[in-house]
Amino acid sequence: MKKYLLTAVLLLNTYLLFAQDKQAILKVLDNQMTAWNRGDIDEFMQGYWKSDSLLFVGKAAPTKGWQNTLNNYKKGYPNKATMGTLTFNILKVDVLDATNAFVLGGWNVKTDKDAGGYFTLWFRKINGEWKIVVDHTS
Amino acid sequence: MKKYLLTAVLLLNTYLLFAQDKQAILKVLDNQMTAWNRGDIDEFMQGYWKSDSLLFVGKAAPTKGWQNTLNNYKKGYPNKATMGTLTFNILKVDVLDATNAFVLGGWNVKTDKDAGGYFTLWFRKINGEWKIVVDHTS
Repeated sequence: MKKYLLTAVLLLNTYLLFAQDKQAILKVLDNQMTAWNRGDIDEFMQGYWKSDSLLFVGKAAPTKGWQNTLNNYKKGYPNKATMGTLTFNILKVDVLDATNAFVLGGWNVKTDKDAGGYFTLWFRKINGEWKIVVDHTS
Repeated sequence: MKKYLLTAVLLLNTYLLFAQDKQAILKVLDNQMTAWNRGDIDEFMQGYWKSDSLLFVGKAAPTKGWQNTLNNYKKGYPNKATMGTLTFNILKVDVLDATNAFVLGGWNVKTDKDAGGYFTLWFRKINGEWKIVVDHTS
């Protein structure tokens, strides 16, 4: 009986931790959206792992590194007008283990015309913070 | 001293298991390529999780489920001529833990013209076998 109780407590604990992780990940994405919509790409970039190993897979060949990803964003969206209004539609957040998570979502950038598509993200918990380590946006 | 030795053995064990997992994942992808190139979409589909929860993110809205993904492939590539010659260029295989892995690769389908792009995959080890549970191809 004690064994089952212990198992139940451990499962509940895992469940609660995963729920907290999910909230933390959603907060990162929400912060990104808010930063983008006030034209602040530098703050938007805080959601990403600040590492030369960050991976961004977009329309062209994959981009490696935080700085290169920032440069690409600034080139693609040189001012607030081109950045328009970003909306995320998060469809799936799966916490895989204590330090890995997967996200699927839709994105839309509204300027005088609409652009949009889908993204899949791999998040890692690094030094206690969830960061995007791979972004595949199409 | 015994403690360090134990840690070293455990680390080596993890490293060897991950190396095995990486090989198993590469084998799945190699089997897919071989199956595709003899025009066998059904065999190609064995690399995917046979579940209604399989997720395929392509150009259109995400497709849910193994059967729907199969139907889309058969619609997009109705015969061997349209399937052409598939080449994968695997750029990254990261085993995250005992049951999760991430893959980045390039793909090319050569018919009378070239088509290609990049994919990110989330693999899970299910009943002892590594299967693609999410495929984002662009």
